[in-house]
Amino acid sequence: MAWLGVDVGGTQVKTAMVASSGQILNKRSFDTPPASGVEQLCACLNEALRQHLAATGLREANVAGAGVGIPGFLDVDRGVVVEAVNLGWRDVPLVAELERVLGLPVAIENDANLAALGEAWTGAGRGTYSVLCVTVGTGVGGGIVIGGRLYRGVNGMAGEIGHLVVNRDGLPCNCGKRGCLETVASASAIVRAARDMQAQGRLAAGVAIEGAREVFELAAAGHEAARAIVNEAGHWLGYGLALCADTLNPDAIVVAGGVSKAREAWLRPVRDAFAAYALPRTRAAARLTLAALANDAGVIGAARLIAQQLGAAE
Amino acid sequence: MAWLGVDVGGTQVKTAMVASSGQILNKRSFDTPPASGVEQLCACLNEALRQHLAATGLREANVAGAGVGIPGFLDVDRGVVVEAVNLGWRDVPLVAELERVLGLPVAIENDANLAALGEAWTGAGRGTYSVLCVTVGTGVGGGIVIGGRLYRGVNGMAGEIGHLVVNRDGLPCNCGKRGCLETVASASAIVRAARDMQAQGRLAAGVAIEGAREVFELAAAGHEAARAIVNEAGHWLGYGLALCADTLNPDAIVVAGGVSKAREAWLRPVRDAFAAYALPRTRAAARLTLAALANDAGVIGAARLIAQQLGAAE
Repeated sequence: MAWLGVDVGGTQVKTAMVASSGQILNKRSFDTPPASGVEQLCACLNEALRQHLAATGLREANVAGAGVGIPGFLDVDRGVVVEAVNLGWRDVPLVAELERVLGLPVAIENDANLAALGEAWTGAGRGTYSVLCVTVGTGVGGGIVIGGRLYRGVNGMAGEIGHLVVNRDGLPCNCGKRGCLETVASASAIVRAARDMQAQGRLAAGVAIEGAREVFELAAAGHEAARAIVNEAGHWLGYGLALCADTLNPDAIVVAGGVSKAREAWLRPVRDAFAAYALPRTRAAARLTLAALANDAGVIGAARLIAQQLGAAE
Repeated sequence: MAWLGVDVGGTQVKTAMVASSGQILNKRSFDTPPASGVEQLCACLNEALRQHLAATGLREANVAGAGVGIPGFLDVDRGVVVEAVNLGWRDVPLVAELERVLGLPVAIENDANLAALGEAWTGAGRGTYSVLCVTVGTGVGGGIVIGGRLYRGVNGMAGEIGHLVVNRDGLPCNCGKRGCLETVASASAIVRAARDMQAQGRLAAGVAIEGAREVFELAAAGHEAARAIVNEAGHWLGYGLALCADTLNPDAIVVAGGVSKAREAWLRPVRDAFAAYALPRTRAAARLTLAALANDAGVIGAARLIAQQLGAAE
């Protein structure tokens, strides 16, 4: 038995045929259709399914269902995307439409939640009981897995670590509050801080800061101001993780997303702050590591989701 | 079938015979034996069991087990109290000793966790899916119930809301960190703030502040300084609850403990801060109420615990 895992992003859609073991048999990607293109997305996913079948030699009867990760708020019981700002979607009945086109059972879930489920299944959280997975990119997202299953909370908001108010006097956040973790620990926060420093003449004026990557490179090259920015963002993330961990008491904390590519330079201040703010017994129980599945976590988690919903996972 | 529920406190031990419905059939209490007195405690509990049987007309065969709440860190799998500072206990194999004396299966759990389980079963969290219960007294404790069962985390630390670092520049806490919720939102914090105000001549000099009760009374009588203290403590609690709720996304938040007796005067600033700091969807999903079971939550939760562990609860 195999499962189609789909990860819909703002620019690209990733798809993979995933075996019951969690192994990816074949993967593909295509550009995300424009906002109006839900039908077009379904057609592209059907085309991707055919290509996966051809590439793997599987027959349609071997594929039991499809899981789909969406960046937004969902009503998973009704199978509706309530709002996905980056896709320009609102109240889209994706499950019904996609089931009709694919002829397969479909389940949808928030993308950060599926990344957590993927990492818990075959990635950095493998073999642990409860996993807190935080994805640090443009924003800061999170997901929680307990006993191998996604813990969504009562309306899908569990693990929304990006909107913990960590700095009560901080900057406004897109969510309407001030000082959310996302405003101080995301790639966007790092870029903003670096550009502010440049404007003040305190950081390499000649370097175009396109993203967090340039700031990490400046830090690695010994620029003190860049290093301070990286350390501060990492410190805030570690503090936010400590707040989550003191509530959840997990045995694995997994840091994923673009920013985690900076690896140890980024993880060191995260770990230091986590150790300073978490309770000793909570800290001792939690292994804090980088994600293991990189960009595959979402499609693997999506496959796991539909397998579990169909009762085909142990 | 009935269950013996026990709540061991620093000064008193409460016991109750609890029916499968959660109803208390009979309850008693006795003074907590001195630190050395684990055998004495077991003998007192055996005596209490006999008295409960006599009072209810139940026979020994009707009582299937005993659950015991302890204020401290436990190794529940081994049945050992690792450390209970208020009892002066360290590494006490309570389950083995008490099973021998009572001739019944025994389960132990942290007292704040059992209060949460009790409130979730028949109290303010009844009928909800996930419950965060916070007990505000000398300290601030917490417990989490998901799907009717205690969620302990990987080593029993889940829901330790009292040690969320909410004020990073704050006062030292007993746990070794600074600015824990307990240092700003507990009854002790309220008393300390009031005595500081008195020392500065800013609060009713003639009133002996024995506990938080006097501060609430002064606030109710219109003393601005007392009201400010109550509001600030409540504000911190609401902030801490928002941090927990953004992680857990519960449908019920239950505030228990001595301080909650001040009822609405205390709950108003808690609710205001919770609304200000929690994500809108998280806030909308969570009902924030006072506890319903008062001092009975612990014994009811203890009975539920042993019933669940013996597989006798639905």
